[in-house]
Amino acid sequence: MIKTAICGASGYTGTELLRILANHPKVKVTAATSERSAGKKVTALFPHLDAYDNLVYEPMDPDILLKKADVFFLALPHGASQEAVDFFFRNNKTVIDLSADYRLSDTETYEQWYGLPHRYLATLKKAVYGLPEIYRAKIRKTRLIANPGCYPTSAILGLMPAVKNGLVNTASIIIDSKSGTTGAGRKADLAVSFCEVNEGFKAYGIGVHRHTPEIEQELSALAKNRITVNFTPHILPVDRGILTTIYAPIKTTGTKKMTQDRALDIYCQVYKDEPFIRVLPSGVFPNIKNVRGTNFCHIGVKLVERTNTLIIVSAIDNLVKGAAGQAVHNMNIMMGFDETEGLRNLALFP
Amino acid sequence: MIKTAICGASGYTGTELLRILANHPKVKVTAATSERSAGKKVTALFPHLDAYDNLVYEPMDPDILLKKADVFFLALPHGASQEAVDFFFRNNKTVIDLSADYRLSDTETYEQWYGLPHRYLATLKKAVYGLPEIYRAKIRKTRLIANPGCYPTSAILGLMPAVKNGLVNTASIIIDSKSGTTGAGRKADLAVSFCEVNEGFKAYGIGVHRHTPEIEQELSALAKNRITVNFTPHILPVDRGILTTIYAPIKTTGTKKMTQDRALDIYCQVYKDEPFIRVLPSGVFPNIKNVRGTNFCHIGVKLVERTNTLIIVSAIDNLVKGAAGQAVHNMNIMMGFDETEGLRNLALFP
Amino acid sequence: MIKTAICGASGYTGTELLRILANHPKVKVTAATSERSAGKKVTALFPHLDAYDNLVYEPMDPDILLKKADVFFLALPHGASQEAVDFFFRNNKTVIDLSADYRLSDTETYEQWYGLPHRYLATLKKAVYGLPEIYRAKIRKTRLIANPGCYPTSAILGLMPAVKNGLVNTASIIIDSKSGTTGAGRKADLAVSFCEVNEGFKAYGIGVHRHTPEIEQELSALAKNRITVNFTPHILPVDRGILTTIYAPIKTTGTKKMTQDRALDIYCQVYKDEPFIRVLPSGVFPNIKNVRGTNFCHIGVKLVERTNTLIIVSAIDNLVKGAAGQAVHNMNIMMGFDETEGLRNLALFP
Amino acid sequence: MIKTAICGASGYTGTELLRILANHPKVKVTAATSERSAGKKVTALFPHLDAYDNLVYEPMDPDILLKKADVFFLALPHGASQEAVDFFFRNNKTVIDLSADYRLSDTETYEQWYGLPHRYLATLKKAVYGLPEIYRAKIRKTRLIANPGCYPTSAILGLMPAVKNGLVNTASIIIDSKSGTTGAGRKADLAVSFCEVNEGFKAYGIGVHRHTPEIEQELSALAKNRITVNFTPHILPVDRGILTTIYAPIKTTGTKKMTQDRALDIYCQVYKDEPFIRVLPSGVFPNIKNVRGTNFCHIGVKLVERTNTLIIVSAIDNLVKGAAGQAVHNMNIMMGFDETEGLRNLALFP
Repeated sequence: MIKTAICGASGYTGTELLRILANHPKVKVTAATSERSAGKKVTALFPHLDAYDNLVYEPMDPDILLKKADVFFLALPHGASQEAVDFFFRNNKTVIDLSADYRLSDTETYEQWYGLPHRYLATLKKAVYGLPEIYRAKIRKTRLIANPGCYPTSAILGLMPAVKNGLVNTASIIIDSKSGTTGAGRKADLAVSFCEVNEGFKAYGIGVHRHTPEIEQELSALAKNRITVNFTPHILPVDRGILTTIYAPIKTTGTKKMTQDRALDIYCQVYKDEPFIRVLPSGVFPNIKNVRGTNFCHIGVKLVERTNTLIIVSAIDNLVKGAAGQAVHNMNIMMGFDETEGLRNLALFP
Repeated sequence: MIKTAICGASGYTGTELLRILANHPKVKVTAATSERSAGKKVTALFPHLDAYDNLVYEPMDPDILLKKADVFFLALPHGASQEAVDFFFRNNKTVIDLSADYRLSDTETYEQWYGLPHRYLATLKKAVYGLPEIYRAKIRKTRLIANPGCYPTSAILGLMPAVKNGLVNTASIIIDSKSGTTGAGRKADLAVSFCEVNEGFKAYGIGVHRHTPEIEQELSALAKNRITVNFTPHILPVDRGILTTIYAPIKTTGTKKMTQDRALDIYCQVYKDEPFIRVLPSGVFPNIKNVRGTNFCHIGVKLVERTNTLIIVSAIDNLVKGAAGQAVHNMNIMMGFDETEGLRNLALFP
Repeated sequence: MIKTAICGASGYTGTELLRILANHPKVKVTAATSERSAGKKVTALFPHLDAYDNLVYEPMDPDILLKKADVFFLALPHGASQEAVDFFFRNNKTVIDLSADYRLSDTETYEQWYGLPHRYLATLKKAVYGLPEIYRAKIRKTRLIANPGCYPTSAILGLMPAVKNGLVNTASIIIDSKSGTTGAGRKADLAVSFCEVNEGFKAYGIGVHRHTPEIEQELSALAKNRITVNFTPHILPVDRGILTTIYAPIKTTGTKKMTQDRALDIYCQVYKDEPFIRVLPSGVFPNIKNVRGTNFCHIGVKLVERTNTLIIVSAIDNLVKGAAGQAVHNMNIMMGFDETEGLRNLALFP
Repeated sequence: MIKTAICGASGYTGTELLRILANHPKVKVTAATSERSAGKKVTALFPHLDAYDNLVYEPMDPDILLKKADVFFLALPHGASQEAVDFFFRNNKTVIDLSADYRLSDTETYEQWYGLPHRYLATLKKAVYGLPEIYRAKIRKTRLIANPGCYPTSAILGLMPAVKNGLVNTASIIIDSKSGTTGAGRKADLAVSFCEVNEGFKAYGIGVHRHTPEIEQELSALAKNRITVNFTPHILPVDRGILTTIYAPIKTTGTKKMTQDRALDIYCQVYKDEPFIRVLPSGVFPNIKNVRGTNFCHIGVKLVERTNTLIIVSAIDNLVKGAAGQAVHNMNIMMGFDETEGLRNLALFP
């Protein structure tokens, strides 16, 4: 049994890690930190985390934690994660960082979007962007994962086959995302109170959301040239789920006309061995409800000939494939476990 | 007191007309039709329509209705409305048709998208597209209104200032719309049952939704050249509201650079005298919850310089500004009433 | 035009007063207070309160307010209201207090349940409990209304005909209430955040909720003997509405057997002239959705012969009949206006 | 691997069985029936049931099914189940019937509440009421389980310790239940359409709900005398969950006064070895959200001295502990598996 610690285990991402790992046969959670709730039982805060009746929140003391675990999941706020990742990594631990701190390889871009400098460049260079569908080989060999953001996961998985295979013109990609409210985190905040969110729907962070450079970094790498995208997030009155609707003009170079069948076929080929990606049949489109509580990403593809546009829709659970589930998937790969270990539950529908 | 009849008064659009007209001081509803519920009291089906305790649903008998009312609101299914509109109009009544039958001036386009021919061309030519913000002058002089669709209302109002003033390149406009479930109508249908819709979110009708030609017709008229758009509707787990997020590339011709301030100023100027349009301050974006139950359209504008894109977000209540409220607004204009009569309620928030 | 001030106008009760009074033809809101938002425009916080574009929140300065208005609605926290009510009342203003401070005539009971002494006994004696269906005559003659609590309104209206007419044994009444989340107030609080409330349902305050003595005071007055009740509130994942299910054993004294028809008839008789009470037909029961946004109370009655129990279900909108709407109703009565002025909107359904 | 068939596998109970059994290591689903969807793939209807990519719905042909499986879960409508249960049971299969057909041992009561006679008395006598917390010993020895109803499960588990130990007067028990909308089944029905249910709440079937005699049968057996109860179900605008609030007068016979601590202690003692029951600490009450997707029943107990009433609140997931999960639990017991096999997932929170 691998001993794991979860740093930042009283937020929605941290508790989702606890939920998933409770059924992982090869892992034992030996420490869970929370500054505010240190000293309290996990089940006192979360009656649903019944399997952890003996686990008590402790403060984040790196030296103590070092002795308690071998794999560290860090679900700390951006900025706060920089030092913690570096510390555990330098101490030969396996680290999966769920913050944004180690996702952007370009420190200038990081500083520009997050407003702080990156102080651990040597460690940053070791980090692998933990999207298994692209970086599986590198993930196998690393001890440090920058776990992707929730929106980037949905956008990159939706676009990867098209961009990698040159199906679309990458100059004017539109990414319109809609996320459940857990994406805003667990906090006392009027803006996420029930009566403000329920029966409402709105866009936010238009043109300035911090997941933009992460999406651009990965799409640029796939396209092998610098891509700029329009990314607009919206907040849905549901607990979980991200649905991303993507628009990209079909590239018309070449002699063979792109068709719905060919586009769909490319998607199916690219993802045919992926355990957590489902490319839906032609004419079927994803619903966040069908992936709720799972690590699956459902993808629907539609080539609209009238407008010469490829429209791709992807759906994930932001807390699972968009955070905790993908983190466990990365751990499974790094540890040599079956990739789906702990992640085989079907969606809770309805 | 004007006598009005509502044909198709047991669906969500029809009952919304009843709700709004109950507080209209110059109008009395003298007939309400429903094939299925003929003979039943309105309040037996809808306990909330308390003001209509003496109104009984009757079958749709045009000859009888002719004697009962002077203004006819038709909330009938597409196709079924063609003949009814023609009949009441030829009999010198004032007609507001909430179906799509008289919205498309080009009958080929109508036949192509709706799958049936238009059999009343003479009457069709008399119809005015009932978007007061564009056609107020014509509405004043007509007796026949083709009341706009819900999605087109949100899209056209969002784009009108930009398209009319040549701010944007109209070749690649993206319209990503999200609608509350009342948009699907009042019906016994597994697809709109609570447990299928709740906590879910999905796109539908990608590339083929019937509101597409209606949007294109009006934008083309504004731009004075033929425009094709990508329009993708989604279904939200809320009762009411449409939020439309629109993407259009800034047109770079001319010497003066477009800025956020100039773009917003153009929107404010265009709508400054409109009683039901609110252009929100820079950095503020609409929420469907803020227009719920009202005839308002809230619009937010953001010029993203990184991508040279104008992003516009509009919010309406699909049953009010997107249907019944706009119909009453049109009636007010035609009858010479104060335009806001019956439509002054503030949003029910929360 | 009567000048009114709303003290505590940035909570859900205060904004509901603003919403309702915006359409009241005989009233003008001349002041709105908010400590936290003093200096801000009402529409900056609440874009839906469009009719108040020139109203700016001000701090609660009684001396200044005195000059600004003649009728004062106080939507302040319990305790804070004691002094404010006394001040405005002694200065000859008309006061409608929406807090609990002047509802309990027995100061010992008040101190026991609210944890503070009452310091304004002389003023307390002048207060009339503002339930028009019971105290209309007194309301007409007073200048000081203690506006009833939301749960008590639903419970007392549900029980009044039965208790007053001796239909039920009052020794073991059960009141099981379910309230929308606006009942918890507008605040940054994890407990009312969307992801905690949505898809959840729970009881709270079992046996200790502060509305208990208010219900008991009024039922005791109706029964002319001291009544103790079980009252259990629950929180619903909806914005608005209280549904109260009440159980009381049928009193079997007398020769004439109580029947469903007789019980319903008594309810219909008692409420036949009430503008805001609807007793539903036999076999029909209320739904909070049918009274949303209105001042109506819907009541359903069922006599269960198997168990000799009268079951009564009442539904109100907690922010309207349970707070702001009832306050306006009380004002209308005190001012001699038509009782339904400003309160004639039908429910927003769906 | 045990071969199991699910008859009626396209409703919410049937699909929940599929969801749970997908992760059961000792069971393989070899047949799933659906009249309407016969011939279609399970995943064509339910994209979330990803693990069943090769399973195709078949019509209900008992002779064919007999050869395909050893354990039969029947999720058929009431009435339709009578014959099917009898057939499979007589053919030496293990049968778990999720309908009400074999729950009531008294056929007169069955006929009275369900409106049809019971035609298989010999088989009926063999059925064991499948509530493991009461009938575990009998379940071990039977091949025929009448799986309890959802409401009865929540009510009986809430009351069992109190009734069995004589804590309460059983003459006037009130059971006020609130259920998620999946309880109404998967169907095209206006009454359960999103816009009718969402933001609404209502009682239904007051005094006449068919789960009443089932609750009374089991409570009577526990009390060893005939008990009649008031049972009122309500419909919640959530997918899953039943919260039941129970009121019973404390029995005052005996010398030792009942206290909160003693009452709670009795509950803890009764359930201390139960794998799926959690008695919550004093002052903590259940929330349906904490048991969502699980086989747990959370119970909170409050003795209200003011009114001499024991108030018990229980929460279950109606589709799991109230149906499919309890069915699997019963199978585990009958087959000698670990009781929690396939049922160890923690709740999906949020």
